[in-house]
Amino acid sequence: MQSADNPSSRSEASKPQPPIRVAVDAMGGDYAPGETVKGAVAALDTHDIELLLVGDAGAVEGELDKYDLEGKAVKVVGSVGKISDDEHPMHAFRQKPEASIIVGTKLVKTGQADVLVSLGSTGASMATAALVLGMMDGLERPCIGGPFLGLAPRTVLMDLGSNVDCRPSQLLNFAALGSVFAHRFLGTENPRVALLSVGSEKSKGNRQVQDSYQLFEESHLNFVGNVEGMDFFNDRADVIVCDGFVGNILIKFTEGMGTALGGYLGRLLSPYMSDEQMRGVFNELWQTTNLPRTMGGPLFGVNGAVIVGHGSSRADEVAGAINTAVRYVEMGLLDSMRE
Amino acid sequence: MQSADNPSSRSEASKPQPPIRVAVDAMGGDYAPGETVKGAVAALDTHDIELLLVGDAGAVEGELDKYDLEGKAVKVVGSVGKISDDEHPMHAFRQKPEASIIVGTKLVKTGQADVLVSLGSTGASMATAALVLGMMDGLERPCIGGPFLGLAPRTVLMDLGSNVDCRPSQLLNFAALGSVFAHRFLGTENPRVALLSVGSEKSKGNRQVQDSYQLFEESHLNFVGNVEGMDFFNDRADVIVCDGFVGNILIKFTEGMGTALGGYLGRLLSPYMSDEQMRGVFNELWQTTNLPRTMGGPLFGVNGAVIVGHGSSRADEVAGAINTAVRYVEMGLLDSMRE
Repeated sequence: MQSADNPSSRSEASKPQPPIRVAVDAMGGDYAPGETVKGAVAALDTHDIELLLVGDAGAVEGELDKYDLEGKAVKVVGSVGKISDDEHPMHAFRQKPEASIIVGTKLVKTGQADVLVSLGSTGASMATAALVLGMMDGLERPCIGGPFLGLAPRTVLMDLGSNVDCRPSQLLNFAALGSVFAHRFLGTENPRVALLSVGSEKSKGNRQVQDSYQLFEESHLNFVGNVEGMDFFNDRADVIVCDGFVGNILIKFTEGMGTALGGYLGRLLSPYMSDEQMRGVFNELWQTTNLPRTMGGPLFGVNGAVIVGHGSSRADEVAGAINTAVRYVEMGLLDSMRE
Repeated sequence: MQSADNPSSRSEASKPQPPIRVAVDAMGGDYAPGETVKGAVAALDTHDIELLLVGDAGAVEGELDKYDLEGKAVKVVGSVGKISDDEHPMHAFRQKPEASIIVGTKLVKTGQADVLVSLGSTGASMATAALVLGMMDGLERPCIGGPFLGLAPRTVLMDLGSNVDCRPSQLLNFAALGSVFAHRFLGTENPRVALLSVGSEKSKGNRQVQDSYQLFEESHLNFVGNVEGMDFFNDRADVIVCDGFVGNILIKFTEGMGTALGGYLGRLLSPYMSDEQMRGVFNELWQTTNLPRTMGGPLFGVNGAVIVGHGSSRADEVAGAINTAVRYVEMGLLDSMRE
């Protein structure tokens, strides 16, 4: 983990820093506010943070009553309503101006929070972040990325999100942001950047990839050419770039396969192991095929720190996303991205 | 397995049929001609077939000398040269008119063989088949597909090949061909057809999928809408359609994951199992993530029966592809596709 080369990094400051202020959309996620609040409270045990829980004040306080918060820095910030997955983000943005994701994002915008953690609708998080925080220069839409395979925990895939029809210049932006992330967050020197395609030769791929190849070659990135589907497991590249259509299919396919393999291996392994031993194996297998669930990932390209977690996060995963948020702020990643 | 409802099916004929004539490109595949010939000879033990081995006569006969072929129907058909993966198929087609894949495909065209099995370059197989055999009405390019996951052995994915930028009408063709295959080869009644996308709603997906949705809705297919990456494991559809860019990435990703999981599980399971027990588990795991290697798949849309296997096939996989070829002919699948 590298941060020492960043003069603005909070982690290497010579005097004690105030605690990082983490806003959490307490209404976001399939198991909100219960699991979301539980995970946020758990994160207080491992990090010196100030927690800003955004949500319906009554509901959130009701959850908080379950825990001993003596000496803990927790505030509730009231909001009204939430934006769900099946609403059009822009429409909902106008209809529900006090929705939890909007109030939470504004806390980052106004400097009242250092980072926002959202487990709610990714589309709503992206749209709200773009509108409230604004995009970095030269970027049009936020993207999502990061390591997504426990079998290749240092390989970053960009974009995992909803940028489904991308021009080459957008793919190049994903590559640049992923490169900074791999370097600063994962400590990879001079990250190798590749385009995901159907063959390693320059001539292989669809029009989008073929048009992007030359742009990547001419960039300042450490471009190593095209990689193929099996190369996620071959350490051929540190940052693998595709559009969000392909990335989203891959990440969901991986999750589904992890779950299905659990059942399949159960039948295969039951002669050799006890149920409890198998549970341990399956738990590891699940984690390795559900990496983004365990740690969340930053929303790249917006002028503010936002970490998005999986909608189906339980308390452990909420705490994992908050852990990522704290490290993201400590490492001064946002400033690196802007550069 | 259904064939009884097809009057032209060879398998339900009332009088004895002559053996199916299977041409094999003996020069195709990473381990040709040794493993290719070995696998083809092995297939003679399980099927009443006549084998036409196409290749350099001296090399093929040298391999055949290793086996006892008493009473077996094996012929060698001479060819000169082979087309490799890194050659442009159209260029090679003109430069090497007697290459093994071309001679083999012509055996099907002229009726000297019922089916061709190719383990060589998929691009060369596709181009040669399109040129020599011609395309079915309304189709422009061959496509490849079939079950690709041992965890979902009855779910057909189309296209796995090199149709990388597809119009909606092409995706619809893939769907129709995959539907016939699922019905006739896998015995699925009224196969459910889906588009692979990033959300189940009609509005979700890239332009290609959105433009295809309505065309699929208006077709005679049993279209059930969009599915997502995890739905391969949920039995949501029998035929899942995507372009060859996405399909090729998915199939190679799956192969890579199977191999990587083998090593990963080895560390996890070694406390519980002997090396030999683990080898059994890994062998099953490998097969479930490498299904197309074990059985090959038909080249869809061409006017002739061609089965393509994986380039890295060993003898067992070559025999598996020949098994698929025999069933394909027995079931009269080509006629069903034409309809």
